[in-house]
Amino acid sequence: MMYYEDLELNQSKISEQTHEVTAEEIKAFAGQWDPMPFHLDEEVASLSPMGGLFASSLHTVAIGTKLGHTMIDEDIAILAGLGWDELRFPKPVMVGDVLRCKSEIVDKRVSNSKPDRGIVVTQMTVTNQNEEVIATYKFTNMVFRRPE
Amino acid sequence: MMYYEDLELNQSKISEQTHEVTAEEIKAFAGQWDPMPFHLDEEVASLSPMGGLFASSLHTVAIGTKLGHTMIDEDIAILAGLGWDELRFPKPVMVGDVLRCKSEIVDKRVSNSKPDRGIVVTQMTVTNQNEEVIATYKFTNMVFRRPE
Repeated sequence: MMYYEDLELNQSKISEQTHEVTAEEIKAFAGQWDPMPFHLDEEVASLSPMGGLFASSLHTVAIGTKLGHTMIDEDIAILAGLGWDELRFPKPVMVGDVLRCKSEIVDKRVSNSKPDRGIVVTQMTVTNQNEEVIATYKFTNMVFRRPE
Repeated sequence: MMYYEDLELNQSKISEQTHEVTAEEIKAFAGQWDPMPFHLDEEVASLSPMGGLFASSLHTVAIGTKLGHTMIDEDIAILAGLGWDELRFPKPVMVGDVLRCKSEIVDKRVSNSKPDRGIVVTQMTVTNQNEEVIATYKFTNMVFRRPE
């Protein structure tokens, strides 16, 4: 188990695994959670400024989260997610895109109110097969400190 | 079709529909996108500070997004989502919780670079059956202006 103390600031990791985005997955995800016509229907999407079916931004973050888990060799003693900040989607995720993610811990501090816990902020960057950035965001987790 | 001009600032809406969160849905969502043990296994979750299975924060935002769509009477001429900000999860979402959401447009402005488009910021608040806030966040969409 990895604790707060084991998480190193400013070390970046890149996912070995990738995730290929299919039309079926875009439509299934959007159909359940974000039913916008341009995520569900190729014809509607082809007439949009994107020129084709593209993924919901929620779906993109889901893929980033999934890839993030593949980068962890050992369980981290996370209590809960506290928040996310500054999610940006500079380019759309199109059918056939192959996504990869990079993570870096950009801030960590011990909780003031609960000294057995720390707060860790991770910057995520999701890129496509052309190394274009398609999403950036930060997430903040509460992580247990190593028991004495 | 609703355009940028039709979206009113500072008017809040509450979803008529609700979403009941089941253990099956928590595990299915987390299994696919956010496989943390406390979202997948009741026994592990019962030993966590939450005291039971709780939903991934990504899943909570997905439910908020889905409920948000149920509040729209007419399609909005959205081009794309630009970003999300300040996502906070003050309380966990537990099995059996019944979620509802409130939305309010908190900022809108015409794009400087593309005068046929506007940028609209919506504040979302997701509450449970006890009217406790379980998630708050803002999302920013690019929306077409009404064609002349």
